[in-house]
Amino acid sequence: MSYFSNINKIKFEGPKSKNVLSFKYYDPQRIINGQKMEDLLRFSVAYWHTFTADGSDPFGAGTMQRPWKHLTGMDLAKARVEASFEFYEKLDVPFFCFHDSDVAPEGNTLGETYKNLDIIVEMIKDYMKTSKTKLLWNTANMFTHPRYVNGAATSNNADVFAYSAAKVKKGLEIAKELGAINYVFWGGREGYDTLMNTDMKLEQDNLARFFHMAVDYAKEIEFDGQFLIEPKPKEPTKHQYDFDVATGLAFLQANNLDKHFKFNIEANHATLAGHTFEHELRVARINGMLGSVDANQGDKLIGWDTDEFPTDLYSTTLAMYEILKNGGLGRGGLNFDAKVRRGSFDVEDLYHAHIAGMDSFAIGTLVANKLIEDKVFENFIEDRYNSFTYGIGKEIVENKANFNSLEAYALNLGEIQNKSGREERLKSVLNQYLLEVISEFATV
Amino acid sequence: MSYFSNINKIKFEGPKSKNVLSFKYYDPQRIINGQKMEDLLRFSVAYWHTFTADGSDPFGAGTMQRPWKHLTGMDLAKARVEASFEFYEKLDVPFFCFHDSDVAPEGNTLGETYKNLDIIVEMIKDYMKTSKTKLLWNTANMFTHPRYVNGAATSNNADVFAYSAAKVKKGLEIAKELGAINYVFWGGREGYDTLMNTDMKLEQDNLARFFHMAVDYAKEIEFDGQFLIEPKPKEPTKHQYDFDVATGLAFLQANNLDKHFKFNIEANHATLAGHTFEHELRVARINGMLGSVDANQGDKLIGWDTDEFPTDLYSTTLAMYEILKNGGLGRGGLNFDAKVRRGSFDVEDLYHAHIAGMDSFAIGTLVANKLIEDKVFENFIEDRYNSFTYGIGKEIVENKANFNSLEAYALNLGEIQNKSGREERLKSVLNQYLLEVISEFATV
Amino acid sequence: MSYFSNINKIKFEGPKSKNVLSFKYYDPQRIINGQKMEDLLRFSVAYWHTFTADGSDPFGAGTMQRPWKHLTGMDLAKARVEASFEFYEKLDVPFFCFHDSDVAPEGNTLGETYKNLDIIVEMIKDYMKTSKTKLLWNTANMFTHPRYVNGAATSNNADVFAYSAAKVKKGLEIAKELGAINYVFWGGREGYDTLMNTDMKLEQDNLARFFHMAVDYAKEIEFDGQFLIEPKPKEPTKHQYDFDVATGLAFLQANNLDKHFKFNIEANHATLAGHTFEHELRVARINGMLGSVDANQGDKLIGWDTDEFPTDLYSTTLAMYEILKNGGLGRGGLNFDAKVRRGSFDVEDLYHAHIAGMDSFAIGTLVANKLIEDKVFENFIEDRYNSFTYGIGKEIVENKANFNSLEAYALNLGEIQNKSGREERLKSVLNQYLLEVISEFATV
Amino acid sequence: MSYFSNINKIKFEGPKSKNVLSFKYYDPQRIINGQKMEDLLRFSVAYWHTFTADGSDPFGAGTMQRPWKHLTGMDLAKARVEASFEFYEKLDVPFFCFHDSDVAPEGNTLGETYKNLDIIVEMIKDYMKTSKTKLLWNTANMFTHPRYVNGAATSNNADVFAYSAAKVKKGLEIAKELGAINYVFWGGREGYDTLMNTDMKLEQDNLARFFHMAVDYAKEIEFDGQFLIEPKPKEPTKHQYDFDVATGLAFLQANNLDKHFKFNIEANHATLAGHTFEHELRVARINGMLGSVDANQGDKLIGWDTDEFPTDLYSTTLAMYEILKNGGLGRGGLNFDAKVRRGSFDVEDLYHAHIAGMDSFAIGTLVANKLIEDKVFENFIEDRYNSFTYGIGKEIVENKANFNSLEAYALNLGEIQNKSGREERLKSVLNQYLLEVISEFATV
Repeated sequence: MSYFSNINKIKFEGPKSKNVLSFKYYDPQRIINGQKMEDLLRFSVAYWHTFTADGSDPFGAGTMQRPWKHLTGMDLAKARVEASFEFYEKLDVPFFCFHDSDVAPEGNTLGETYKNLDIIVEMIKDYMKTSKTKLLWNTANMFTHPRYVNGAATSNNADVFAYSAAKVKKGLEIAKELGAINYVFWGGREGYDTLMNTDMKLEQDNLARFFHMAVDYAKEIEFDGQFLIEPKPKEPTKHQYDFDVATGLAFLQANNLDKHFKFNIEANHATLAGHTFEHELRVARINGMLGSVDANQGDKLIGWDTDEFPTDLYSTTLAMYEILKNGGLGRGGLNFDAKVRRGSFDVEDLYHAHIAGMDSFAIGTLVANKLIEDKVFENFIEDRYNSFTYGIGKEIVENKANFNSLEAYALNLGEIQNKSGREERLKSVLNQYLLEVISEFATV
Repeated sequence: MSYFSNINKIKFEGPKSKNVLSFKYYDPQRIINGQKMEDLLRFSVAYWHTFTADGSDPFGAGTMQRPWKHLTGMDLAKARVEASFEFYEKLDVPFFCFHDSDVAPEGNTLGETYKNLDIIVEMIKDYMKTSKTKLLWNTANMFTHPRYVNGAATSNNADVFAYSAAKVKKGLEIAKELGAINYVFWGGREGYDTLMNTDMKLEQDNLARFFHMAVDYAKEIEFDGQFLIEPKPKEPTKHQYDFDVATGLAFLQANNLDKHFKFNIEANHATLAGHTFEHELRVARINGMLGSVDANQGDKLIGWDTDEFPTDLYSTTLAMYEILKNGGLGRGGLNFDAKVRRGSFDVEDLYHAHIAGMDSFAIGTLVANKLIEDKVFENFIEDRYNSFTYGIGKEIVENKANFNSLEAYALNLGEIQNKSGREERLKSVLNQYLLEVISEFATV
Repeated sequence: MSYFSNINKIKFEGPKSKNVLSFKYYDPQRIINGQKMEDLLRFSVAYWHTFTADGSDPFGAGTMQRPWKHLTGMDLAKARVEASFEFYEKLDVPFFCFHDSDVAPEGNTLGETYKNLDIIVEMIKDYMKTSKTKLLWNTANMFTHPRYVNGAATSNNADVFAYSAAKVKKGLEIAKELGAINYVFWGGREGYDTLMNTDMKLEQDNLARFFHMAVDYAKEIEFDGQFLIEPKPKEPTKHQYDFDVATGLAFLQANNLDKHFKFNIEANHATLAGHTFEHELRVARINGMLGSVDANQGDKLIGWDTDEFPTDLYSTTLAMYEILKNGGLGRGGLNFDAKVRRGSFDVEDLYHAHIAGMDSFAIGTLVANKLIEDKVFENFIEDRYNSFTYGIGKEIVENKANFNSLEAYALNLGEIQNKSGREERLKSVLNQYLLEVISEFATV
Repeated sequence: MSYFSNINKIKFEGPKSKNVLSFKYYDPQRIINGQKMEDLLRFSVAYWHTFTADGSDPFGAGTMQRPWKHLTGMDLAKARVEASFEFYEKLDVPFFCFHDSDVAPEGNTLGETYKNLDIIVEMIKDYMKTSKTKLLWNTANMFTHPRYVNGAATSNNADVFAYSAAKVKKGLEIAKELGAINYVFWGGREGYDTLMNTDMKLEQDNLARFFHMAVDYAKEIEFDGQFLIEPKPKEPTKHQYDFDVATGLAFLQANNLDKHFKFNIEANHATLAGHTFEHELRVARINGMLGSVDANQGDKLIGWDTDEFPTDLYSTTLAMYEILKNGGLGRGGLNFDAKVRRGSFDVEDLYHAHIAGMDSFAIGTLVANKLIEDKVFENFIEDRYNSFTYGIGKEIVENKANFNSLEAYALNLGEIQNKSGREERLKSVLNQYLLEVISEFATV
């Protein structure tokens, strides 16, 4: 059975194509820097937004028109799996991601939930045999059910901690079963609403305990996927413990967990924390902690997570700049943790949205790659900081200076000359690269 | 004497040019929609940011390297005038704008201030005789001097109101003398910090009185420039009375002033108010109140007015879309109320920054114009709202329906079918237009 | 049958009481300024948050423990009515408010929905016969059902406009039937997500048409309740047309509707728009447009509507200051448009929360009343603005001055002397009033 | 000579006093929890805001009326020292803080600057001999002069790094000379405006080098004051490296500096970072890093640092709660890094503002202490988390559980029961404590 019978396989047709259901810029086989675009970008579809979500929001019911809408329970779960693999194939996307509860309904008991999961995981495994699409990561939903009202690993209720442990245990087993390349921890409700009723220290200590148990269990079952923490500053709780990359890093370091984790960085979470997307990527990169990316965008005038499909070419370019400087994403990928707007309720919009995101990241990749090839920022930065390559600057970076030697030097300095940062020109150059790189692409 | 002797006249050289001091996209003579780009865009240099400001900020002293830096008083004022006209000519820009205090130093008395102004205005007038550059608008600075600590026309001090009236009177006379096309009122400190010490009603009534007096005086001296109000939500005061276009409109309507004023809309003020730039332009446009534009950009992650040069091509495209749909700016212009970053302290950066802004608006114009020519949004919107062109919808817009007729109709309706808003596809199309329109431009 | 059998009637027991289920400061019969506190404050329970909502949020399912939880359909609707009147009585609250869909389930057709409503309205009417609790206002929910995905009166779909008209028609009939004192319009989805697919002018014109039809129909059926518009800047749509009071005022004035409407002002909507609660109240007050209040509070560090119960005594004091200066709320009231936190899921929390809100507004009333009695701000303001009571200031406010006379005056002024605004001292005094007024209350 | 001859020594006169220049709640000798209020609160005056600042802002010139206003250079510097000690004495405050450039003017060379500093430091030392007021901390201003345009220790210019090292070296010597109890590092311009021209890794590595050199030099000269880092998220740069406590902690840990530093936490910096003040205090406290406090408040609707005097009693109560739970501030203090509003320009306002702040923290202390004495939150939290004191919860916190044991437990669980968080009741209780504790205080 086909769920998207009126949609043909999406192909690269170039920017002149009038076919709205084609890639204009994303050309999977195109070689960039010795690598196929497909292998470099490692796109992934987020199961929850694309197959599970119905378009409801805090002020309204679901709007999404979906061919599986009439089904319920396990029938619905199975239909979604079928539809998902048809979708991956038509979009020609190499990865997908899911929470346990996206794929299988919760049962009346944990045991029943396990059984439901087992059936669906078996089905997914079967589909994967004949599909090129792999599991980038899975995770456990530990925020939707009322039991998680006060968090999961940071709940005030030990039963909830135990239940959550069982969920992640099962999640790791599924990860191993399906060959997941990573396993993600998003904090969900791991945070607080008011300090007046919160023991922050116990909660964070318990979170560290939980992570250590996960590391131990992965070792026990020989699951060798990368563990990823996904920072988010707030929502649903007022304060989430994994506020941003730096906060996550402080926590991991303090608990001897930094060797076992990297970060899964989401654009919209970055801006909710008051940072640019590229800032969070940079912080992770220079600390060797850039694991994977949730590729979406937010609206900076809006104070909640809008999870929009990424179409801002400045954002995709500057993000890909960080990723390329990182030598790529390694075992990570670009997962579209993005939802079609509530008003974009047609099935067709799912394709439009993913095409928009994939084309936008393809453009960003082409531009970022050319910026790096031409060393546009690198040369500017090399020149800007060159005072650290000789004399007193060299002594500083080689740890040969101290306050006494530096004072002696400073007392003999005349007026210090600085160099202009040229921010306006650099922004102009970025625009020129965006337009001209793509202009050349168009004529290929 | 030349202030910018190492800078040649900035010319259009196209996107392939390696000359950083050239326009890549702004081609003043290029015809768009029957009009020269120069006549359509009406660029203006902001005297204060470019010639008066020194780069100081709340945490630091001035950094700007300027060839007139060693001068003081009237000598400094005169040097700035000389430099400004050299700058306009080298940048080939048709307009400039100033506050009274940007061009001439305040004297010890109001009379002395008038004398200083008279000397400089005479000098400017002289320069204008041989320059193509006209005065887009002038205004009075009524916020820097300590006397305005509690506002000008909304001060609690009647003396300050009187003093401010004299300033605007002089400003209108200068406007007439120099042939200013508009006169601007930016609220400065017209607002409050705490309601606990504020009589908001008296302050707003006084503001209305002040505006009526200005209208009367302009009539008296036969100054026929357009009066413009520039909304800003906050900074320096916590709440500014001209919060945004809608707030300004409510005030003007309530005080019978809406016939005499339009709005000067600034991008960064829009975003500080929680709106997009294009939102403010749209609100003004559909109310027939779009007067002129302060062309800059803010950083939406930053809570103060950063007044950056406009380089975001989404913003320039969507702004130009509103402006072109408005039939252009009429007597208004695109004034670069923008400052080079504090770290961009070289004279050269002033040119880089203006080039960046002019190229960015040129690109925005080309893209917006093509979007309109192809009726990309128009066709979509026409189709989206077409239910109002027949049947019950037609009755509604022709004011022939009422709750009784509509209820009768509604009771017979089956399930209502809506149309997808296609936001993701529209964003994709916007990207494609941006890249492809400019790609074609490049080959011209 | 009793739904809250373990809860006794909440009584005023004073601040020393150890009974958590008692009023500590809200003493309904206490006379303030010649009026009973009960008559002055006009508290109202919001049906939706208290009886209909289940505690779900965008990341989680309902958590609320409610004695009617096991019921569905009309049985559930009826149980809620029963519970609601028990709640009003135990809380001794004079008003309630509801949306149509809060009280009765939507049927398969509009006709069925009417029938459900008729049954429930009849039942409510019956309860009201023996209850002191009156209907402060009702309204129509035009945002939850998918048909409103693009708005109601501003939908792109004429059928939705017609359907919405029928809903409001029915709402007005219910209002008349139940003796509602006001009828509220909250914009719901009357706004837009992207201008690229939006005809803002048509949408706003249609909104004006809709309001005129409502005014006409109220006249037709002789419903004489006050019409109220409730501003909100964003959420669920990115931009709501009734952004704030000023924006609403501009719209009403432009469409000759300002005679027929006042505003229902919500604290959390004010702060989402970047204003304080008291600012919005002041703007409405000085324009004669203060109708009613949605008494809640937001968290200014959070970018979405949290609808918390009001407990911030600064906010309740400054709000009550505006309300008392307005001569009270007239036909309006203080409606607790507030929800218990998702983690406060016990039935008991509903009582705790309302007690917290009622006590907080009682305190605010006592403090604000004393501030006004002592003319604390009034005297300060009178002195601060006294320059407008004589000489040039008097001429200004009596419209006898013009730019010529003011310039003549200003030219003869010496250095202008301003008066300190004393913000720090005023804040200190506010604290002192808060603590000392209540300290005296305690000893009564 | 007296600078404040019309101001008498500020004394505790209790809440009934009509004398605006008296403490109403701050009673230095009152014993709280075995300690004098004065010793517990350790108030400090910020030299820069109170004696150096002139009230200028980005849109206006200085407004402050000060008796030393007519002086310049070293005469001005000396007058300020004289005035400052008169101020400390009249306010009876035990500490003060300064940046080097607050107290002495910069010379033409570093050597001259040193000389100016030496003269003033000698003078301060002399005053300290007969004053009870001690130096809580000093620091070096490394952000005002243009040389710091790109930062100090993170400048791209090695000369600036060297110059900054000399400044801090001198600062540490002054600290030792004056017996400073702490030495503070606020990041000033240690951050970036755009990543396009920034080598974040080199900059942060250099910052770590700089801190290590400071630690070494302190050891060399046997200065044993506590080193403090003051986080701030942005302003003046778009991104400051010491964003918040967690970010600072990550940096210190990664660079083996956490043993040598604690944090100086400012309320307004916390809210600019999206946190409450008490959140930042809590994070520092549970990590053993709470050093000192910059006691002020911001306006959460405003996006820049307003540095207001602390008058919000919720904020002072919840801050003092953290501080008391920390066992006090140790070597730290409550430094009023706060400025009078630009409109509060009288000398008298300096006293009003400090009195407001001191009374507000006194109230906060009384309330927080009583909350702790009564174990209001402690008992609630103990009960809320009690599931971790026995059974599976005990095993978890004793590190005896693992995923296998927890799964076995979870599989046998029935429906999990959670406890209500009672946020509304807790907020009510907080109000009651605020009002009743102070009500009792009033009668003492």
